[in-house]
Amino acid sequence: MLTPFSDLVGRYRVIFFDAYGVLKNARGVLQGVPELLSWLSRQGKDVYVITNDASRSPAQMAAAYVHPEHGVLIPESKNISSGLLAKDFLRSKVRTGRVAYLGKPSSAFYIESAGLTPVHIGACKNSEELAAIALLDDEGFDWFRDLNLILNLMRRVSAPVIVANPDLVYPVNDQEVGLAVGSLAGMLERIVGKAFVRFGKPDTMIFSHAFACAHENVPDLRKADVLMVGDTLETDIVGANTFGLDTALVLSGNTRPEQAKLMIQTKGIIPTYLCESVFT
Amino acid sequence: MLTPFSDLVGRYRVIFFDAYGVLKNARGVLQGVPELLSWLSRQGKDVYVITNDASRSPAQMAAAYVHPEHGVLIPESKNISSGLLAKDFLRSKVRTGRVAYLGKPSSAFYIESAGLTPVHIGACKNSEELAAIALLDDEGFDWFRDLNLILNLMRRVSAPVIVANPDLVYPVNDQEVGLAVGSLAGMLERIVGKAFVRFGKPDTMIFSHAFACAHENVPDLRKADVLMVGDTLETDIVGANTFGLDTALVLSGNTRPEQAKLMIQTKGIIPTYLCESVFT
Amino acid sequence: MLTPFSDLVGRYRVIFFDAYGVLKNARGVLQGVPELLSWLSRQGKDVYVITNDASRSPAQMAAAYVHPEHGVLIPESKNISSGLLAKDFLRSKVRTGRVAYLGKPSSAFYIESAGLTPVHIGACKNSEELAAIALLDDEGFDWFRDLNLILNLMRRVSAPVIVANPDLVYPVNDQEVGLAVGSLAGMLERIVGKAFVRFGKPDTMIFSHAFACAHENVPDLRKADVLMVGDTLETDIVGANTFGLDTALVLSGNTRPEQAKLMIQTKGIIPTYLCESVFT
Amino acid sequence: MLTPFSDLVGRYRVIFFDAYGVLKNARGVLQGVPELLSWLSRQGKDVYVITNDASRSPAQMAAAYVHPEHGVLIPESKNISSGLLAKDFLRSKVRTGRVAYLGKPSSAFYIESAGLTPVHIGACKNSEELAAIALLDDEGFDWFRDLNLILNLMRRVSAPVIVANPDLVYPVNDQEVGLAVGSLAGMLERIVGKAFVRFGKPDTMIFSHAFACAHENVPDLRKADVLMVGDTLETDIVGANTFGLDTALVLSGNTRPEQAKLMIQTKGIIPTYLCESVFT
Repeated sequence: MLTPFSDLVGRYRVIFFDAYGVLKNARGVLQGVPELLSWLSRQGKDVYVITNDASRSPAQMAAAYVHPEHGVLIPESKNISSGLLAKDFLRSKVRTGRVAYLGKPSSAFYIESAGLTPVHIGACKNSEELAAIALLDDEGFDWFRDLNLILNLMRRVSAPVIVANPDLVYPVNDQEVGLAVGSLAGMLERIVGKAFVRFGKPDTMIFSHAFACAHENVPDLRKADVLMVGDTLETDIVGANTFGLDTALVLSGNTRPEQAKLMIQTKGIIPTYLCESVFT
Repeated sequence: MLTPFSDLVGRYRVIFFDAYGVLKNARGVLQGVPELLSWLSRQGKDVYVITNDASRSPAQMAAAYVHPEHGVLIPESKNISSGLLAKDFLRSKVRTGRVAYLGKPSSAFYIESAGLTPVHIGACKNSEELAAIALLDDEGFDWFRDLNLILNLMRRVSAPVIVANPDLVYPVNDQEVGLAVGSLAGMLERIVGKAFVRFGKPDTMIFSHAFACAHENVPDLRKADVLMVGDTLETDIVGANTFGLDTALVLSGNTRPEQAKLMIQTKGIIPTYLCESVFT
Repeated sequence: MLTPFSDLVGRYRVIFFDAYGVLKNARGVLQGVPELLSWLSRQGKDVYVITNDASRSPAQMAAAYVHPEHGVLIPESKNISSGLLAKDFLRSKVRTGRVAYLGKPSSAFYIESAGLTPVHIGACKNSEELAAIALLDDEGFDWFRDLNLILNLMRRVSAPVIVANPDLVYPVNDQEVGLAVGSLAGMLERIVGKAFVRFGKPDTMIFSHAFACAHENVPDLRKADVLMVGDTLETDIVGANTFGLDTALVLSGNTRPEQAKLMIQTKGIIPTYLCESVFT
Repeated sequence: MLTPFSDLVGRYRVIFFDAYGVLKNARGVLQGVPELLSWLSRQGKDVYVITNDASRSPAQMAAAYVHPEHGVLIPESKNISSGLLAKDFLRSKVRTGRVAYLGKPSSAFYIESAGLTPVHIGACKNSEELAAIALLDDEGFDWFRDLNLILNLMRRVSAPVIVANPDLVYPVNDQEVGLAVGSLAGMLERIVGKAFVRFGKPDTMIFSHAFACAHENVPDLRKADVLMVGDTLETDIVGANTFGLDTALVLSGNTRPEQAKLMIQTKGIIPTYLCESVFT
């Protein structure tokens, strides 16, 4: 029932990888990833990272895949994050003004690069004039003080609320998970009754964005030429399935090997392939 | 459309009051409450407080209604809290063992008085043997560290999870609200997929418990003899309506005067009376 | 891990039984039930049926447990249904007027016996003056025509909406389920955005009502003297647990033997006992 | 606060129209629409219909906008429906086999044109081998019999479930709405616990698909050159906002003029413009 990942590669021209649980974990890039990426490059495969992440800039993401010997393995332009979609929204729909945000200072990149002024929630006055409110990351603020502050901002201000990472949890280690900003967003949305604008998997827009990038390099690219590799049924697999890509679920992250079959059946989300990891 | 509260009193033998937004606010008991309670007592009315609160013991609650001149206005036994129901559950269903809890040290009363051992979440090891997990209050712990810790406890342990205050928010002042432990519970429940056991309004059990107490004092008491006075449609009013009591919505707390009519129509929760406050 | 049901009986003075999946199935009362009930009676046990059902009157329910030889096994007064709670609500809170309802004509009992006038949804004009809307059963009306009709009534009328059976599905046979009125209610509630008033398990009010009845017969009855026997974790078991009763999950209905352990762990709803059926 | 629609046209190169509530109502195309479309054509505007609809083929949709004098006003290729996205999914992800569907026979177009075999739910055996289940329309089947049938199919079969119109209701006339297939889908999804695959607004994929079509005609087209015109905040406006288009909310359909301001503020979904209708 498990397919070796290396057997799949020949069938596709472009590979989309999720980052956490596939190429990385909480301690960084997995051992063997530089070699894998180099090998894919030699095979002529075009590789992208498709990640729900607005905690750091594409440049910082790219830096994770730089190897002393092989150089840059996945350049900035091929790290497609939910943060990038949020940035596009801020630039095209909000345009100017101050944006209160939850997240580390490095998250502010997505606001600044859209031409707006980031205001860290901790520095935000309750009377602040705001063009938008952005939930970018679960770290970099005082949860008790700042979740209460942002709740009251949301009640007072009629500006749009943006969620740049809809994930509920992220894996911390083999046993534990952490609460991601998508969980905090869900809690706040139910209280204030507004419709937050969410960016990232499973919404298909991130796949559409990445496919358009890949299509520029390979003009005759079809969806059937692309494989999405992810560790999470509810984001990676259902999103890419909906967009029309083939999908491989790897069992190295959020989906534990002993649960995979039951979860696929229970949820009705069916990956094209099941692989132990990207190394097999 | 507004009825003076004093006009209603003659029609009932027993009055159930919500605490926050009716008799108290964040700064304490409202001016005029001791006089009101004394007057009700002289009219022969039996008065109870029905409150979603597990942050302090009934004795501490009663102490809020003690007046230098009039003495104890609402005794410990007539402060019926959601915490009491949680205590009954722990005593009858869990019985022995250690209970990890979210809340201030004063919340531990409800675990201790049930004969179990409270373990503050901050002192809880991930390998702790637990008979139950109790979400009691939104204060008294480090949100970032301890919400992540309790999430992983919930995933690992198969013990029941108790929510002793289902409120989503509480009023901080005329403009602002605070996130109550019911919001945190809802966020965690959606992630872990378990069915938490909730105590407090709008579930009818707290009204049933209070009615049984009142019935002991007044053996021929009928539900039609009891008025529930509250400031929140979704808890006080819908719960007491379901239980079969008459209800008065006061506009001194969560429901703002300018919104009352729209909210009643939108939600379809219809109080028997609408009063400006308990003082009119 | 399975306890024989007959071993449990000696520990309790009162037994609460769910009906469907425990004593009955879609074809009627299970073989052996009359003998079981007679035996319990000889043991001096007081027996009640606690059922989410508003499709027929208590007299009709009682008639199911009449045996040519043993006579009436569970009298009308000990068939405690969610319909009865809805009737109490209509009588005490709505009082007079016309009530549009979804259900078979036999459901109208709960409206008529509360002193109100039932109007079958199929006979209801869109301009009808209504005191309440009642969702009583999934049969006895044209789903397409009447669900659309009642949706528009709910949007137009500000009267309370009552759901007298919150079950989502009911077992039709070993393999199939049917959509119960609670599913239809949930769909309509999400569209109209109102708070419907629900009666029945898992809300504790039905247990409170039954316990009060039992208490009249046995004045020193404590909750620890009562066992609730049901086939569904999300209604029978969690509701009775919350109310403080001991609980036995039987595997003869909604919970399949091969799923029981996983469902208990996944949902975190823990019965006191697990029994194959009431016959073992 | 209202902008005349004709004032907006000059600012955009491409106009996306929702169909129902904008260009049509339950009785057909609105008076004045042919003239409006002809005028837009003369102004050099490229016009698309973006509609949540899988009840008829694009050819049938196009036929609604044919005028004796002006000829075809919106050709088949510019009627972009949620059904088309579902068809793409069936073709690329399901590929072969039998697909049980809810809907009128005309809905079967989307299954047949993907190369699969449609099986109307009424003709579907419970033992049917199915490659997918498709919820296409709220008409063309017996709700009671067939919703129960499809529920049991969903429980038995592990094939993907497709919802080709996520709308909850549709306007029937000025006062009344009808239950759309998205409401039925939501009810079934909650019962079976699977993740259904939804196509249509507010998901951005339909906008992405339409933008790609428009881009082929106008190679230098930017998102800022496109205006989406719709009558529903929760689908048309939030979806197009998320995709990055300017949006005009018209008050001729689901959003009533007297509610528009309150709904925009309550939901936090902010259209770029507010117009009485497309005729002003």
